[in-house]
Amino acid sequence: MKKINVGKKILSENEKYAFENILFLAEQKKLCLNMISSPGSGKTTILTRTISELKNKIKIGVIEGDIQTDIDAERIRATEAPVVQINTNGACHLSAAQISAALKKLPVEDLNLIFIENVGNLVCPSAFELGENGKIVVLSVAEGDDKPAKYPAIFAKSKVLLVNKIDLLSGGQVDFDIERVKVDARRLNKGIEIFPISAKTGEGMADWYDWLIKSVEKK
Amino acid sequence: MKKINVGKKILSENEKYAFENILFLAEQKKLCLNMISSPGSGKTTILTRTISELKNKIKIGVIEGDIQTDIDAERIRATEAPVVQINTNGACHLSAAQISAALKKLPVEDLNLIFIENVGNLVCPSAFELGENGKIVVLSVAEGDDKPAKYPAIFAKSKVLLVNKIDLLSGGQVDFDIERVKVDARRLNKGIEIFPISAKTGEGMADWYDWLIKSVEKK
Repeated sequence: MKKINVGKKILSENEKYAFENILFLAEQKKLCLNMISSPGSGKTTILTRTISELKNKIKIGVIEGDIQTDIDAERIRATEAPVVQINTNGACHLSAAQISAALKKLPVEDLNLIFIENVGNLVCPSAFELGENGKIVVLSVAEGDDKPAKYPAIFAKSKVLLVNKIDLLSGGQVDFDIERVKVDARRLNKGIEIFPISAKTGEGMADWYDWLIKSVEKK
Repeated sequence: MKKINVGKKILSENEKYAFENILFLAEQKKLCLNMISSPGSGKTTILTRTISELKNKIKIGVIEGDIQTDIDAERIRATEAPVVQINTNGACHLSAAQISAALKKLPVEDLNLIFIENVGNLVCPSAFELGENGKIVVLSVAEGDDKPAKYPAIFAKSKVLLVNKIDLLSGGQVDFDIERVKVDARRLNKGIEIFPISAKTGEGMADWYDWLIKSVEKK
């Protein structure tokens, strides 16, 4: 019986669209960031706060990936940022073909920065390039400080690690050694930028905004 | 070019092993539960506390699934429960073939209950039957109360929902409406048992233990 290398074939089809997206974003000189995390790490709250607080500096659009519902897209829409919803109907990651279609629905020419909020999953989205300029991994302190060691792929591939919900550390109810996370993440990825933040209280967000503004200016 | 229905083929191969596991567990009259959640919801802490507190009542073994590392297996081993580690090396779920091999390494005849701790992923493991008698989904309150609506598959398929880290609610730092979770989970799955617990403080664990003991007695 012939063996078929299924993983490679799917990736190659995906890579074709990813390459198209890379070319399109380069021509348009737009920054596109692919935000990846487990469910409930706070991706949407980070985005809504970032969009609102930077609205006079950079114009942000969002491609919102969810398995089901448009709960998150509605939250983004409330900021008045343009948003395109993708429902994967069970699939565990966004594909480059979906991003290609979504980019055609966004008013890209009016934007400086496009965020892709991937499906909540720390594993699968890391294997599918979407043509983005960089990945942003979000880890909530409630998830524990062993995650870079246990889920290395996404930490190895990301430009930025946002350690979110640091407000929970002040109550003493969450055990989380941020130094361990920094050491483990930088062992996988020497150049990764790490910003401890609370998207709820705003703590630490200024450094993240500076990084975003500088990254947009470089395009 | 011929189209190949890849998803179905993989599931069918998996189902063959799952069926073998079902038969094996039925012959042995052992309860096997497949624990599924996002990374960092507290699966391992739930297991170590459950094993320790029930050690005079039921004998528990664990099949420990991780993408990388044996951090969790070491924590289980410290309870003196038998444990078999599976490293998926990047794969996002455990397969029934892996469970079949792991069952051969456990002293099944000496056990009442076998827990499978699946890879931390709320999406993919729900699609792969392992031959278990039931799925246990764990949701930490830090992940938010919209998760049954946004990730319905695993809530629809589970026998039990453990809502973990309820100790975080007392500090007032986490917004989480447990009634919303109960309504949404029961809309997907009328018979699902829901136990709010803190594996850290022990709150609520007694009801979970009662359910486990009764389920073992039924085998």
